[in-house]
Amino acid sequence: MTRQSVPLDKAFRLINHGASTLISAHHNGVANIMAAAWVCALDFNPSRLTLVLDKSTFTRPLIEQSGYFAVQLPTQTQAELVLKMGESRKYTPNKIDTIPVFYQENYAMPLVEDCAAWLICRVIPEAYLQEQYDLFIGEVVAAWADSRVFRDGHWHFDDAPEALRTLHYVSGGQFYVTGKGLNIQK
Amino acid sequence: MTRQSVPLDKAFRLINHGASTLISAHHNGVANIMAAAWVCALDFNPSRLTLVLDKSTFTRPLIEQSGYFAVQLPTQTQAELVLKMGESRKYTPNKIDTIPVFYQENYAMPLVEDCAAWLICRVIPEAYLQEQYDLFIGEVVAAWADSRVFRDGHWHFDDAPEALRTLHYVSGGQFYVTGKGLNIQK
Repeated sequence: MTRQSVPLDKAFRLINHGASTLISAHHNGVANIMAAAWVCALDFNPSRLTLVLDKSTFTRPLIEQSGYFAVQLPTQTQAELVLKMGESRKYTPNKIDTIPVFYQENYAMPLVEDCAAWLICRVIPEAYLQEQYDLFIGEVVAAWADSRVFRDGHWHFDDAPEALRTLHYVSGGQFYVTGKGLNIQK
Repeated sequence: MTRQSVPLDKAFRLINHGASTLISAHHNGVANIMAAAWVCALDFNPSRLTLVLDKSTFTRPLIEQSGYFAVQLPTQTQAELVLKMGESRKYTPNKIDTIPVFYQENYAMPLVEDCAAWLICRVIPEAYLQEQYDLFIGEVVAAWADSRVFRDGHWHFDDAPEALRTLHYVSGGQFYVTGKGLNIQK
């Protein structure tokens, strides 16, 4: 088992490098998974992040009603999956049926297997923000990472298989893979 | 001259891959430049982004008072500069004095030479957001990029010198460089 818990005060490091994400949600027996590039750290302590969620998405009401969502960092081998999850379930109703998922105790949303990291967030309700800017604030309540790429509070992409590097989406099917590490002494 | 204007409806692509940034601001004869990893696209049209700006920063009052800031994407050769700009001017008062900067017509803030892209933003005032979450919303009013890496609305890192790749900050002096491109057909 390479999936290990990440302390909440280190969770921002999972998203700090700006990788693209998959969002999972579940409410009342209905689940969905969507691609989202507009996820960003907001605070260290408590560990919070922002997520932009268009009103047209199938996932948004699931998040509004359940008050929870998961942020996941897919790897470069999942780029096609990310694009597929970028199509709305409104038009591709079976899009999540063949995706390998797992569940963590106490949380109802399906989590995508083989990602580099998973963060479960509780929505901090901010009606004006959500309505005016499609912006949701999530407080991270649990996080895990694949210990081959993230352990002891740090990413270790350069020591891990290339396939496990995360993705940075631009648009129109164009991604960049997370590249080589640079460690600069302050 | 490799610096070329970017249409505002393509400006989100400059920041979509989640690179770390330098923020510039100017008010009443005082300028500053700071590092910021927590910048994220918010909307395509109008082109907007979010910026997290701690109350302790020297730069924040410059932005609040002038209503403008610039977001810049440094390249991997500027990693040391980014770390240096991550130290508050409150403790390193001369930190920007030796940085090569330039100015664009109509805008007062100093822009850092040799970045991959520059976006000038007007603050959309949201007092509650700024106070409660340190979150600022900027509307992009002008953008430029180095045409060796961004042209025709797309990044072209794989065809450009390695030195021009952008940076993704984690913490504690650790960065990842933007890696190889992947183009997936939808």
